[in-house]
Amino acid sequence: MATYMDVHHGMKDITADQLKAAHEADLAHEAEEGVHFERAWADPESGTVYCLSRGPSPEAVQRVHDKAGHRADEIHRVPLSI
Amino acid sequence: MATYMDVHHGMKDITADQLKAAHEADLAHEAEEGVHFERAWADPESGTVYCLSRGPSPEAVQRVHDKAGHRADEIHRVPLSI
Repeated sequence: MATYMDVHHGMKDITADQLKAAHEADLAHEAEEGVHFERAWADPESGTVYCLSRGPSPEAVQRVHDKAGHRADEIHRVPLSI
Repeated sequence: MATYMDVHHGMKDITADQLKAAHEADLAHEAEEGVHFERAWADPESGTVYCLSRGPSPEAVQRVHDKAGHRADEIHRVPLSI
């Protein structure tokens, strides 16, 4: 298991309800891939969303996002954290 | 007070000790600017570091990073989070 930070662009004007719905869609699909989405942060002005997850691979993280209907633009493994 | 996610590029091969030292340098300067750095995550492979902070403005967040010797490449206000 590793920790990942993934980034979505193009989410301009995302609302709190939309972020919540997107996160819940991830949670609905994550178990199939052995992934857990822990946190998400959104900047509606630039349209950027950051998701913090734990999972077996970046491909597994992407598959959850794909099933939830919002593919990530970048997925970074972040083995170091404070 | 707002929440910010800032991003540093070009930190390829950053080590756990270097991330810790960088975070401690932020903590040493943050009070002067009314900022608090909560978490940081690093991807040594792509050289990307993400910092989560709270503070009065993106300029204040950047001033702390400047004083600590590592200017951020992007600072996003993230008013929405889960």
